[in-house]
Parts: sequence; C-alpha cells; structure tokens
Amino acid sequence: MIKEKVRYIVERNSFQNFIIGLIILNSFTIGMETSKSIMNSFGNALLLIDKIILAIFVIEIFLKLYAYGFGFFKSGWNVFDFAIVAIALLPASGALAILRSLRIFRSLRLIKNLPRLRFIVESLLLSIPSIGWIFVLLTLVFYVFSVIGTKLFGASFPEWFGTIWASMFSLFQIMTLEGWADIARAVNELYPFANLYFISFILIASYTTLNIFIAIVVNTMSEIQHKISVKETEKISEIIVDENEELRNDIKNLKEQILKLEEKLSKRINI
Amino acid sequence: MIKEKVRYIVERNSFQNFIIGLIILNSFTIGMETSKSIMNSFGNALLLIDKIILAIFVIEIFLKLYAYGFGFFKSGWNVFDFAIVAIALLPASGALAILRSLRIFRSLRLIKNLPRLRFIVESLLLSIPSIGWIFVLLTLVFYVFSVIGTKLFGASFPEWFGTIWASMFSLFQIMTLEGWADIARAVNELYPFANLYFISFILIASYTTLNIFIAIVVNTMSEIQHKISVKETEKISEIIVDENEELRNDIKNLKEQILKLEEKLSKRINI
Amino acid sequence: MIKEKVRYIVERNSFQNFIIGLIILNSFTIGMETSKSIMNSFGNALLLIDKIILAIFVIEIFLKLYAYGFGFFKSGWNVFDFAIVAIALLPASGALAILRSLRIFRSLRLIKNLPRLRFIVESLLLSIPSIGWIFVLLTLVFYVFSVIGTKLFGASFPEWFGTIWASMFSLFQIMTLEGWADIARAVNELYPFANLYFISFILIASYTTLNIFIAIVVNTMSEIQHKISVKETEKISEIIVDENEELRNDIKNLKEQILKLEEKLSKRINI
Amino acid sequence: MIKEKVRYIVERNSFQNFIIGLIILNSFTIGMETSKSIMNSFGNALLLIDKIILAIFVIEIFLKLYAYGFGFFKSGWNVFDFAIVAIALLPASGALAILRSLRIFRSLRLIKNLPRLRFIVESLLLSIPSIGWIFVLLTLVFYVFSVIGTKLFGASFPEWFGTIWASMFSLFQIMTLEGWADIARAVNELYPFANLYFISFILIASYTTLNIFIAIVVNTMSEIQHKISVKETEKISEIIVDENEELRNDIKNLKEQILKLEEKLSKRINI
Repeated sequence: MIKEKVRYIVERNSFQNFIIGLIILNSFTIGMETSKSIMNSFGNALLLIDKIILAIFVIEIFLKLYAYGFGFFKSGWNVFDFAIVAIALLPASGALAILRSLRIFRSLRLIKNLPRLRFIVESLLLSIPSIGWIFVLLTLVFYVFSVIGTKLFGASFPEWFGTIWASMFSLFQIMTLEGWADIARAVNELYPFANLYFISFILIASYTTLNIFIAIVVNTMSEIQHKISVKETEKISEIIVDENEELRNDIKNLKEQILKLEEKLSKRINI
Repeated sequence: MIKEKVRYIVERNSFQNFIIGLIILNSFTIGMETSKSIMNSFGNALLLIDKIILAIFVIEIFLKLYAYGFGFFKSGWNVFDFAIVAIALLPASGALAILRSLRIFRSLRLIKNLPRLRFIVESLLLSIPSIGWIFVLLTLVFYVFSVIGTKLFGASFPEWFGTIWASMFSLFQIMTLEGWADIARAVNELYPFANLYFISFILIASYTTLNIFIAIVVNTMSEIQHKISVKETEKISEIIVDENEELRNDIKNLKEQILKLEEKLSKRINI
Repeated sequence: MIKEKVRYIVERNSFQNFIIGLIILNSFTIGMETSKSIMNSFGNALLLIDKIILAIFVIEIFLKLYAYGFGFFKSGWNVFDFAIVAIALLPASGALAILRSLRIFRSLRLIKNLPRLRFIVESLLLSIPSIGWIFVLLTLVFYVFSVIGTKLFGASFPEWFGTIWASMFSLFQIMTLEGWADIARAVNELYPFANLYFISFILIASYTTLNIFIAIVVNTMSEIQHKISVKETEKISEIIVDENEELRNDIKNLKEQILKLEEKLSKRINI
Repeated sequence: MIKEKVRYIVERNSFQNFIIGLIILNSFTIGMETSKSIMNSFGNALLLIDKIILAIFVIEIFLKLYAYGFGFFKSGWNVFDFAIVAIALLPASGALAILRSLRIFRSLRLIKNLPRLRFIVESLLLSIPSIGWIFVLLTLVFYVFSVIGTKLFGASFPEWFGTIWASMFSLFQIMTLEGWADIARAVNELYPFANLYFISFILIASYTTLNIFIAIVVNTMSEIQHKISVKETEKISEIIVDENEELRNDIKNLKEQILKLEEKLSKRINI
C-alpha cells in the first residue's frame, strides 16, 4: 500500500516538475559558484542551497528505490541518475577534489526528465551502432598511422610523435585539419616524402569520417522512406481492395440476376 | 476612401519598386560613407541623400500605418521594417553613437521586399524549430563543459577559462576546431588528462551539430518525399478507378444483355 | 562542298583525339616551364613546342569558324575555346605579362573535349541557379556585416577592417573559420561585446552556407526521386492495365457464352 | 587429397579465428615496440614473438598457395595479404630500414579477416568510381592553379610556390582551409589582386569537393530508393494479381452457373 502510494507520488507530474525545477536551479547555483565575486557575497547561501537540493535528490532516489525495488536499475537512465547523485556523496577531498567539479553533471539529469531531450539523446545514441564498424576501421587506421608516425618521426619530434599516445593526439588534431600544415611542413623538412604520410592520412581519415556521416544520413533517410513506402502501399492496396469489393458486388448482382432468371424459367418450363 | 486610395498606392508595383530602388541606393551610400576619400569629396551629398531617403522611408511607414491601422503590426516583417526605421530616428550621440552603424540594417529591408529572398529567409527560419531541441541539448553540453572548464582550468588559464563566459567562448572556438590544439596542448601540459576533456567535447559537440544538419536534410527530404508519394498514390488510384470504371461498364453491359434475354424469354414463353 | 568537308574533318573522332592529345601535351610543357632546371636544358624546345601547338589550335579554331560560320559562337564552350586561344595571341609584354601565365587555362579546354568532364562541369554549373538567391542573401549578409565592421573596428584594426574590402576579406576568412578566434579575441579586447558581432556572423554565415549545401542535395535527390516515382507509377499502371485486359477478356467470353445461349434458345423456341 | 585436406584446414573457422587472434596480438606487440621502457624490459621477448608470428603468417600463405595454386592471386585481398607478409621478409637494413615500420600494415590484414570490416572497406572503395571524374576535374583545377601560382608567386614565396609540387601542397593546405589566410595575406601584400586567386580557388575547390560528397550521398540514396521502389511495386503488383485472381474466380463461377443453366435448358427443351 505504502509502496503504491510512494510510486503514485514520484510519478505525479507536479513531483517531476518540482525535480526539473530543482535541477535547473541547481545548475545555476553551481554555475554561479565559478564566479569569485558572487562566491564572496553569497557563497554560504549557494553552498547551503546546493546541500539542500542534493538532500532532496537523495530522498528522491531513495523513494524511487523503495517504490520500484531493484527494477529501478533496469532503466539505463535510472542508473545514470543514481550514479550522478552517488558521486556527490563521495568525500571530495584530496585526489578526489576533482569530483566536486563533476557535480555539474547533475544538469544532465534534465535530459532524462525532459521527454523531448531524452528522445533526441536516445536517437543520437541509437544511430551509433550503425556507424560502429566504420569507427572500428577508423581506430585501425589511427593505430597503424600512429605506430608508423612514432617509429619514423618520434625521435625528431617528441612533442608530436614521441609516444604512441602523442602520435594519436597529433593525428586527431590533423584529422580536424587544425594546424596540420605546420606539423607537416616541419616534419617534411627533415624527412622528405613525409608529406605522403600526412596527405594520405588526411584523405583516408576524411573519406572515412565522411562515410560515417553519410551512413547516418542514409540510414535515417531509408528508414523514413521505408515508412512512407509502406504507408503508400497500404493506401494503394486499400483502394484496390475497395474497388475490387465493388466489382465483386457487381458480379454478385449478376449472379443473382441469372439465378432469378433460372428460377423463373424453372417455374415456367420445369427445367 | 482616402484610406483605400493610400492602400492602393502603397500596394502598387511601381511604389514597391521605387522603395526597393531606394533601399539599394541607400545601401550603397551607407557603404560609401566608410571610405574617407569619398567622404572628403562627397560627404555632404551622401549625408543629404541619406536624410532624404530616411524621410521617404518614414513617410512610407506612416502611409502604411494609416492604410492598415494596427493591423500593420500583425506581420512580423512590418514590425521589422518599423524597428529599423525607428532606430534611425533615435538621437545617435554619446553611448548611442553605435546605433548609427546599425543604419546599414536598412539594407535588410530588401529581404522583405524581394519575394524570393523573403521566401528563403522564411524557410531558413521555419527549419529552426525542427532543430530547436538539439539546440537546447547543445546549450546544456556547452554549459556543463564550461562550468567544468572554469573550475578545473580557470585558475591557470584565466584568458581561456577565467569566467564561465570566457569558457563558453573558448568552447565555441574549440567547436569550430579553430586553434583548439594550441589550447589543448597548453592546458594538457599543466593538467594531464585534460585532453580527455577536449577530445570528448569535440566528439560530442561535432556529433550533435552534425545531427542538427542531418535533422534539416532529413526533414526537408521527407517532406518532399511525402509530397511525391501522395502524388504517386493519387495517380495510381486514378488509374485504378478508371480501369475499374471500364470493368463496371463491361459488367453493366453484361447485365443488360441478360436482362434483354430475360425480356425476350418472358415475351415468348411467359416466364 | 569544302565547308562540309572541313566540318567532316573537325568532327572526326581522330581529329578530336588529336586535339585532346595536344591539350594534354601542352599542359605538361607549360607545367615544365615552371622548373628552372628543365628550362635551362630544354627551354627552347619547350617554347617551340608551345608555339607549334598554339599554331595548331589557331588553325583548329579557324577551321571551325569556317565550317560553322557565326553559329560557332552559339555554344558557350566554343566561346570559351576561342577566348582561351585568343588570349595567347595578345602581345604579352609589360602590364600584360601576367597573361602569359594564363596560357595554362588552355588545359581547361580538356573539359570541353572530354564528354564526361563536360557533363560534370555542366551539372555543377546547372545546380548554381538553384542556390542563386541564397547567394544573394549571403552577399547581403556580408555587405551589412562588413559595413558595420568597418565603421566599428576600422579605426583600431585597419589591416582587418580598414576598408569595406578588407572587412569583406576578413569576413570571408572568418566564414572559413580560419584564424577567426585570433581576430575576435584581439578585437574583443578593445571593444567588449565585439564577440557578439563575430559569433552572430559565424552562426548566420554557417547556417546560410549549410543551406546552400542542403539545397543542392535536396534538389538533386528530389529530381531523382521524381524520376523513380514516375517509373514506378508507370510499371504499376502497366500491371493494372494488363490485369484489367485479362478481366475484360473473361467478361467478353462470358458475353459470348450468353450470346450463344441466346442464339440456341432463339433457334429452338423462337425467342 | 592432401590439397583438399589443407584447403579444409585453412577454411576452418577455428583456423581463421587463430589467425585473427595472431594479427591482433602482433598489432599490440608492434605497438609496444614504440615504447622505450617496454623495449628495455621485454624487447627480446617482443621481437621473438614477432618472428614467431611472422613465421606462422608465412606458413599460412604457403598453405593457401599450395591449396589454391595460382587461383590464390585472383582475389585482391589475397594479393594484399601476400604483399604485406612478403615485405616483412625483405632484408630491412640500410635504405630499406623504413620498411620495418611498415610491418604495422599487418594489422590491416584484420580488414580482410573480419567480414563486416571488409564489407565497409569494399563499399568505400566501390563508391570511388562514382566520384572518379569529379576527381579528374579537381586534379585539373589543382594543376592549373599550381602552374599559375608557381609562375606568379614562385619567385617571391619559394617555400609556398617555389616549384609546382610546393604549389600543389600549398593549394592542398588552402583547400583544407588550414592557415590559408596567412598565406593569402602575405602574398596579397606583394601582389595586389592575389586575393582573387585564393578566393576563386577556395570557392572552386570547395564547390567541387562538396559535389564529391553530394555525389556519394545521392548515389547511395538513389540505389536504396530504387530497391525500396522495386519492392513496393512488387508488393502492389502482388496485391493486384491476388485481387484479380478472386475476380476471375467470381467470373469463372458465373460462367459455370450459366453453363449449368444451359445444360438444364438443353435437357428440358432440347436447345
């Protein structure tokens, strides 16, 4: 009984809107904490509000845990909610101080609570698998080029190609085309033909990422097209069936007409 | 009566073309005012022309206000026109001197007066709602990343991440991929793992903006497809109905034939 | 007679292939002229070849002019050919020396002579009108922003915004997102809120150019879709008509059957 | 007999998975060789593993060569495999030392062995011909602009436009929009109107590459659309034929009914 009542409460629109309001308020207070002048004047108030809101979030999660039991964790979004609130409860001192800045992730709870936003994020996530293998390919290309880059240019350009991670970062930078020419010109001066390395990487990486993009467009479009096509086929088949119905009625009438004729004949001439 | 006459005048093609001509002329004179040598020779003439054209624009607005009354403000484009002309009448001295340079906005009145241009701008504006929620999502991502950036890197890199606004500008710069590697390399030197921050932001921001673009393409395409599909269904259903008409006629003929047979029979053998 | 013979010659495949070969050869010789070492060794030979090829091109044009008369100039491609050859005959000394480097434009004659290449260029040119008005809009945006930029920032940043042309170039640079942040940060230091100018320009310009791109995709796609849809409708209507044909035949058979019955009856019982 | 047994072995899933495992393992060991600290501790082990894996790859190729004979080389992927393993067997000393870093290409054998990856790469390669002629056009544009660039700016800016290859590299850089404004501004200072050269190149090159992209999207989409359209036509035609079948049955029944009537009549009144 209590369980059902709690469930009724946490599912009420007013409760959800209250939580949404708190998330937005909390986003602003955390944002304001970045300003020193505001912190000097209202620092304590802001931290107090933060603690109160956090407390409410913790209660909210407990209510939901009580209402749904472990079924609560079946939804990825609930796990997401839980993790974000849980992080805030960790002791944020020493090496973990960085976690305090992750409190702003609470704003992301908005995504779960605003259906439209959740829909967009879910469709963004859903279109990832369709590009998954292109991503594997891209990773392979990155790996191969960064091993080659490290071996060939690592000794002379340690900042860019010193380790395999440095090479990967440089290749990522080159893929975004940001400052690639500076790197390429510098390397090419020491190693002629290095341009081949850079240009071929740019061409392969651009062509592959281009195809990631094309894959998403084409996937989305062909789904929509499929739906439109199915609807069209349905409409046309409906028209065909309707028209056929009329024809069959006409033929049925004909049949009855002949049957009547037959009856009449049978009466008169005993056929 | 006079109202109708005024309305007749302001709606005449020749009047509208006259206004278009003035807008173009005014655009050039305002452009010429940026050249010192031209201003030295023809400065007074240019300013005079500007005043005359402005006067005509004011009269035009008054005529329209008189002709349409407050209905004039129902169209967003009229409000736009009104605002642009009204700005020019403000005293442009002191802090408002900057308003003088906004006079060039008058050129934008061309958009309203050239139907094709207006059509394009209207469709550009119409496709914005379809991307509205992706935009909200992007804003959220920006906000979260700029709060984190300010908290983590603000102390060491005040120019880039000193305040939340500085962080937002830097993130916008990083989203355009302009000089992002310089920022990332500098920050990463002090804060290892900062690259994670930059690369994840670039990936999330690119993927989201990419989907803004895809949303527009897919929306536009699926509308067109829907129209083509509806037209096709109509054509096919027309063909089906036509063909069915013929069949029903054939069956009708058959019916009449049998009816005649029946009649003949009835005459001869009294069925 | 001679006219027809000349026309026959210039339209022969072998003649056209000969010209294509010469264009390619000439492209290479002009390219080789850029190398000092090659010029030192074979300079005279290269220049001789160039003169011979030019002579042949001139003869070719004269033959075509003779064969087709002024009808020759009806095709834009012929005008293009004529202009390129004519440029080479101008005295290329003094201020016109720059024209010598335009000789390489002769390579572009390949476009006219290779049908596939010509097809691509023609379709590239054909898709321009569909984006014409967006281009007008973009020009308007550029003009308005460059006038504002010149007036506001011209005095402090003459290199970037000194004249309206400098502003336009800077805005073009900003539209390509190349180094825009350096400009924006420098300007914003002197004029707070200048960032508004740059960010709004980037957003408007990107959104508009994005729509140029979308317009081309959507145009091309909807044409193809229309063709596919028309073909589909044709196929379906064919099937409908064929099937209907069969049905009408069935009904016709029925008719004849009844007719025969009638005949038989008429013979026996004189109906 | 032995040939068939060998063929059976090399085609077994477990054998292929074993090879895939070795490729991945080898990719990691080659990657680890780039780290000095790892090489100091486990260098010998890594090199030993590398030699063992290479030996297994050589055996694999020999087994396949034995099993399939020269038919082995009919598949491009097998040639690819063969070449990559063969490279590793070359004496990698002196000028050929660079070949040692190409050992990482072995990772690319993954593409052949993972069907999904191979499918993506094959479709990437297949979409190249559809853009082949646009590529020819782009090459032509590059060639023409680099000859002009070399002739006009080569003397003053040898680093950027000294030779035709330097110009081509600079134009490639400009096409990626990376640092183009720095080059353009520097050149324009010496040669007024040089901006025309740069801006026209950017516009032409962007528009052409844009069309490469559009060509791929449109090609892929129209193929999918064609398939959807064919399927739709099939479904509709099926419905039509089915419905027609019913109608023909109805008419056939009618026929039989009339036939029976005829029979009855014939019995009674001897028609």
